[in-house]
Amino acid sequence: MNNRIITISRESGSGGRTIGRRTAAELGLPCYDAELIEKLEEATGLSRDYIAERGEYAAHGSWLSSAFSDRDLNGHSVQDDLWCVQRQVILELAGNGPCVIMGRCADYILQETADCLNVFIYSDMEKRARRIVEQYGVRDDSPEKHLQDRDKRRAAYYQFYTGMKWGVIQNYHIALNSGVLGIDACVEMIARLYDRKFCES
Amino acid sequence: MNNRIITISRESGSGGRTIGRRTAAELGLPCYDAELIEKLEEATGLSRDYIAERGEYAAHGSWLSSAFSDRDLNGHSVQDDLWCVQRQVILELAGNGPCVIMGRCADYILQETADCLNVFIYSDMEKRARRIVEQYGVRDDSPEKHLQDRDKRRAAYYQFYTGMKWGVIQNYHIALNSGVLGIDACVEMIARLYDRKFCES
Repeated sequence: MNNRIITISRESGSGGRTIGRRTAAELGLPCYDAELIEKLEEATGLSRDYIAERGEYAAHGSWLSSAFSDRDLNGHSVQDDLWCVQRQVILELAGNGPCVIMGRCADYILQETADCLNVFIYSDMEKRARRIVEQYGVRDDSPEKHLQDRDKRRAAYYQFYTGMKWGVIQNYHIALNSGVLGIDACVEMIARLYDRKFCES
Repeated sequence: MNNRIITISRESGSGGRTIGRRTAAELGLPCYDAELIEKLEEATGLSRDYIAERGEYAAHGSWLSSAFSDRDLNGHSVQDDLWCVQRQVILELAGNGPCVIMGRCADYILQETADCLNVFIYSDMEKRARRIVEQYGVRDDSPEKHLQDRDKRRAAYYQFYTGMKWGVIQNYHIALNSGVLGIDACVEMIARLYDRKFCES
């Protein structure tokens, strides 16, 4: 039987990371986020910052130019190597037992090999902007511009490696507006669905 | 204080109507679906079939041609009249007390005047096709083609009257894949959120 995995995709600043971590704690499951980056650091020798950034986001600049930058004569890039190792590590983690995995295209990578509950967390721009200023302080660029750039580069990365559109409702099993519902309600809904889907049916 | 309203938007064949009705029963609230059509029949003198069809769907054919068909020299149509009455009836129903309202742009109409929980129900095409064949029997056109046409015309209607995109995640507070989660889980999630949002916070 395939393991039961919760994958959490999220808009930047929506509180998705907090929701994933708290849901995992509620259910007594490991949550792979920073831990996944650590494993990738060990496996690839790449820096933590590079992995955090380029294992989930396309490079800055236009997607067309970034998709073809940093590539050798065979059209191969370090980001492609990272994608391959990341895919392998996610498959291994999901094979080890039930867990929560944050982002990194886990919903796509595990679609054939795990029994997934694929969650998308989003919120309106005003609340997301307020949240990142509270959490990370004021930045040079406006928080709204920063968030738009993050979402755009995350969507581009996702589309490049999966061929699917990020943030489109049909790719997920449940989508929750954390700004309206609140973090507590999101955690409760996901934990309850996980229990229902896997324990009651 | 504004009344607490659940609005349910749904893809055709996703079981959204059943989910709305059962959630209303669970919470002891009225559910306005066929009842809304009856009220509109009384208020407009239009036929039930016309209201069911043209109070939620653009006409057949290309949207550009249908948007301008049936209009008099002032650019006015019977569908516009129906929209105005429908809007008024939905505002009145929401003013009367907490309830569940199915479709008909209620999420947009009530955004300033009610305390809404806006829900979107969807499912994959295969399950939706199976569901409509089980419920309504075999049709001349393929069930998939029928569903695609319904969704397209519903989206066109929604966009014409609200200026917003139907089925885009950011317009809703929660979106549930009824095909994966099941009808029972969807009813439980919405009822639980309604209680949480309105009774615990």
